[in-house]
Amino acid sequence: MTPTSPRHFHFNGSLTGPWRVTRQVALRGDPLPAAPCLVVGTADQRPGVWHLQGITSNERYVTRAERTELVARQEGLGRVASTRAALIPIRKTAAWWALTQDERRDVLEGQSRHIAIGLRYLPAIARRLHHCRDLGPDEPFDFLTWFEYGPDDEPAFDDLLAALRASPEWTYVDREVDLRLAR
Amino acid sequence: MTPTSPRHFHFNGSLTGPWRVTRQVALRGDPLPAAPCLVVGTADQRPGVWHLQGITSNERYVTRAERTELVARQEGLGRVASTRAALIPIRKTAAWWALTQDERRDVLEGQSRHIAIGLRYLPAIARRLHHCRDLGPDEPFDFLTWFEYGPDDEPAFDDLLAALRASPEWTYVDREVDLRLAR
Repeated sequence: MTPTSPRHFHFNGSLTGPWRVTRQVALRGDPLPAAPCLVVGTADQRPGVWHLQGITSNERYVTRAERTELVARQEGLGRVASTRAALIPIRKTAAWWALTQDERRDVLEGQSRHIAIGLRYLPAIARRLHHCRDLGPDEPFDFLTWFEYGPDDEPAFDDLLAALRASPEWTYVDREVDLRLAR
Repeated sequence: MTPTSPRHFHFNGSLTGPWRVTRQVALRGDPLPAAPCLVVGTADQRPGVWHLQGITSNERYVTRAERTELVARQEGLGRVASTRAALIPIRKTAAWWALTQDERRDVLEGQSRHIAIGLRYLPAIARRLHHCRDLGPDEPFDFLTWFEYGPDDEPAFDDLLAALRASPEWTYVDREVDLRLAR
């Protein structure tokens, strides 16, 4: 990322917008208020039906070897064929945040294969991770992950999520919403 | 840290306040505007002469074994005898943030012994690290570290800083201000 890349992104549940919300499932904790559309961008367009924000940041767990593989396989957001998307806001427990770096890495990759699982679905599933926890002390989620893919890849995307949700890492998730979108 | 601990702190260079600024040195990059006093707290008291903010967060590098040692030796802020303090805002280069987690850990501890050096000065030098980089894309620093100690420990504190500043990690620092305070 160059220093001038935008880092702070806003997600607005709204009455109109380029992405149509096709489904919302609250897997743990409260759902978001129902909104028919979603606007994603670098402008804060509050008020809408709801507003979430996150900032892209340095990677917290990926090693050099893993990044080399990720970069070789991944494709960017905004592909013409990516007419489906998902926004998955997640909050982790206080117990997760009290782990040390080596313990979090062990749960995330050693036990849960989070990075390896994601790699299997590249380049079909493109993603961008936004951090919320250090934007301020009152954010409702810790992470917002945005995914883009083609309609034929939705079953693969569901497989990816099922693998992650069955992993030891997910015992540290105490709020998760799964929003599916189409444009 | 419990979920209700305050995490977001404000540092206001001001005309009056409990801490008197005894010295400012800009080691790299621009200094802060001169202010005679400093107010530290959880309230945003802008405008002042200058304002910096940061948020405490999960540890990024410390292992379980290291944390056990740190917790056994460290003492908290606010000790009656700690009538001296320092605020050291730091910004790291884009090259630092482009490193992977294993590379940053290797520079920080493997090559630079950052954690081990800090341990040597416990419990005399108490500290709290505040992260700024993910508060938003426009923060002037990446970290604000607040230190407290007694007058007799200032030479030891200078030794600590000299060891860190001579380390490979500091080749990734592109702005650093050293503010000394007394109350």
